Amino acid sequence: MSVPTLAADRSVCPPLPVLGRDVRVPLVTGGEVTYAALDYAASAPALQRVWDDVAAYAPYYGSVHRGAGYLSQLSTDLFENSRAEVAAFLGCRPDDQVVFTRSTTDSLNLLAAALPAGCRVFVFETEHHAALLPWERRADVTVTYLDAPRSPREAVETLERALADREPYGPALVCVTAASNVTGELWPVRELAAAAHAHGARIVVDAAQLAPHHPVDVAELDADWIAFSGHKLYAPFGAGVLAGRPDWLQGAAPYLAGGGATRQVARGADGGVRVDWHDTVARHEAGSPNVIGAYAIASACKALTEAGFETLVERERRLIEAVRAGLAEVPEVRVLSLFGDDAPRVGVLAFTVDGWNSSHFAAALSAEYGIGVRDGLFCAHPLVRLLLGGAPDAPGECGAPDGGNLNAIRVSFGAGTPDEHVARFVSAVRELVRDGARWSYRTVGGRCVPA
Amino acid sequence: MSVPTLAADRSVCPPLPVLGRDVRVPLVTGGEVTYAALDYAASAPALQRVWDDVAAYAPYYGSVHRGAGYLSQLSTDLFENSRAEVAAFLGCRPDDQVVFTRSTTDSLNLLAAALPAGCRVFVFETEHHAALLPWERRADVTVTYLDAPRSPREAVETLERALADREPYGPALVCVTAASNVTGELWPVRELAAAAHAHGARIVVDAAQLAPHHPVDVAELDADWIAFSGHKLYAPFGAGVLAGRPDWLQGAAPYLAGGGATRQVARGADGGVRVDWHDTVARHEAGSPNVIGAYAIASACKALTEAGFETLVERERRLIEAVRAGLAEVPEVRVLSLFGDDAPRVGVLAFTVDGWNSSHFAAALSAEYGIGVRDGLFCAHPLVRLLLGGAPDAPGECGAPDGGNLNAIRVSFGAGTPDEHVARFVSAVRELVRDGARWSYRTVGGRCVPA
Repeated sequence: MSVPTLAADRSVCPPLPVLGRDVRVPLVTGGEVTYAALDYAASAPALQRVWDDVAAYAPYYGSVHRGAGYLSQLSTDLFENSRAEVAAFLGCRPDDQVVFTRSTTDSLNLLAAALPAGCRVFVFETEHHAALLPWERRADVTVTYLDAPRSPREAVETLERALADREPYGPALVCVTAASNVTGELWPVRELAAAAHAHGARIVVDAAQLAPHHPVDVAELDADWIAFSGHKLYAPFGAGVLAGRPDWLQGAAPYLAGGGATRQVARGADGGVRVDWHDTVARHEAGSPNVIGAYAIASACKALTEAGFETLVERERRLIEAVRAGLAEVPEVRVLSLFGDDAPRVGVLAFTVDGWNSSHFAAALSAEYGIGVRDGLFCAHPLVRLLLGGAPDAPGECGAPDGGNLNAIRVSFGAGTPDEHVARFVSAVRELVRDGARWSYRTVGGRCVPA
Repeated sequence: MSVPTLAADRSVCPPLPVLGRDVRVPLVTGGEVTYAALDYAASAPALQRVWDDVAAYAPYYGSVHRGAGYLSQLSTDLFENSRAEVAAFLGCRPDDQVVFTRSTTDSLNLLAAALPAGCRVFVFETEHHAALLPWERRADVTVTYLDAPRSPREAVETLERALADREPYGPALVCVTAASNVTGELWPVRELAAAAHAHGARIVVDAAQLAPHHPVDVAELDADWIAFSGHKLYAPFGAGVLAGRPDWLQGAAPYLAGGGATRQVARGADGGVRVDWHDTVARHEAGSPNVIGAYAIASACKALTEAGFETLVERERRLIEAVRAGLAEVPEVRVLSLFGDDAPRVGVLAFTVDGWNSSHFAAALSAEYGIGVRDGLFCAHPLVRLLLGGAPDAPGECGAPDGGNLNAIRVSFGAGTPDEHVARFVSAVRELVRDGARWSYRTVGGRCVPA
């Protein structure tokens, strides 16, 4: 059961303390075990530090911006300081705006709503739906879906060709992930940004999967905008971020209509209503801000920085190597990859197991080992179907012999993951493949559950 | 300093414990005092019970919906049970949908995006900007702004006339507040709903200010939709609710484009992308849901119900009477009202003080008494300007002799407010008017602050 490559990890640094690290869950086979949260790519546990900061602030929570009371002033400062903290974490340029949204999905929908009329959008088919789908909702925007590249170089070449060929040569936006939510592979963001700018286009980087795993520097990447989510960055309190250039945002209609975004509202002589909208960041933050969510993100940014993000990266790299080495020893396991097995990645890996329905395999990991992974198409259907070689639309039944490649299994981890979780996962995969599941499972609502 | 009418309150029931009830703040005049949070209408403190529930759940937080792990299943159940809890709290009909949004502002923007093409919207000019402004953003929707009524009966008559006169007689929506965020006055929602339905229109009720103060029953009001915010309902974790009829929501484009809202996504033969969207509530909840925010709202709903909401209403009624009686003894105070001094209201009152700039007065309440109120136009500019008799656009300087009616002051309270806060507020108003401020103030960025 031991995974030798993990022993060295302990010399690097311990995992950051997260909530739930001591939670024990029952096993279907009897007894209980500490829960191994290996679905960070969906939602990561809160850092203990984030929770402590939120708990310390919560009694001082108050209305922001126009409140005259002491706690309102304190809360307003805390909210605006959170914005500054996030800007520093991202290496924003001086005139960049940090808009607090609810999630990466929300951030990219906001940017889609702010595109200039006639904008052309270029997006690879491999993106998460949140990055793939918002653009086409604008009737006055044309979207070009780019075929999946099989190397970072091909990604850049594909993009350059598409941008050069565009007609007319008007405003354009490239949307690209920094790290795939399926394969964990890193995309050549800096090179793609250079290509975009060389062709008069802007670029927005979906950093939902990068920001929790790796330092991000907007200025150094030369990204025009960057988006990420609190719930993947150890701050699961309902907030996200869109940060970057102010011009398109200032020029766009406010994202939501409501209080906070308005400077003046008055009835007009014609019976209508005249609205003077803010052109600051408030323009796109109508409604009472999610102060706790924003502060939690700022707290996480600070915690990652103060822990030494490069050390965390090194630690995660060793965990990734342990998972890869462990899975490589099981011939039935096929790791999904666009750029090849050796491509640099964050702690996110998807795979299938020959002869196994993925939902069945994931259910067994949970029920028999207390390991929480995810199965499915990970909100990136075109990419996963491509990597699976064209899977049918509907997943099969538990234990169907052709079940293995209908969905995939994804394991993901990060700053709070102890070595033991990864070791247990690798052992469990090996055991399940070798010995089969010890329990029976049945299909309920398309999911496998213990019978 | 005693306010006799308050003595009786203690026999009703104690306030519900809220976070921050023991927070002490410094006074500019020396010493410190327990903070009196009297800006509930903007953001209410979290109920202790809500905080305890969130804290108990937080270690079990996990990704929802497709996660295979134990905590993912637990979190999914918790999230969906929260939806059911909110539906029960609101008295929803069996086929109503409860959509978790980020706030009332977000809920009404969602409904605006879901209006059928050609819909006519009818809204009183007295609404909060969140209820006033979302509708006109739809190019294919016509908005009729109705003049402020001076009685509930006039509101119904005004609406009936406008609905009857509309041409063509197509789909229509009425948007109305249940309780004003400025005056706290209750609007005749049931009668307005009946009028709407009699004229073939739908109605959405902005219950942001009602839900925290009074039981709401969607079915009994015969409202088609209802919207409210967690942060005003003692659950300030970034979530809100839109609940009601599924048909317009199911027929509308998804609110956000992204994961969770999609059933299937695939490249088409033409190089485009084919999307099959969910037509359940998931359609409008793209992105990872704010599980903690939704659970916090459900916890608050449960807490209010279990505490005996009618008892809380009775308690708040006595607090309102104490404030009204106290302010009535100060001739310089003018309480803002649309429907008259005796109109039923929730614990929200706005007023001006003759000879005082409102920002100055609010600053003195904070700095010298530790009382947090709000000054301004409360995101309801047309209403407040109307009630002030047409105020100029910009507030004046601190202490300007004509300053009193440039803005207004709003005091608001609820289930967590102890009698002492209200007593202190009434005394402070009396003292400030009689003796003047003891400290000097100056204007910084349009706000008065201690010099």
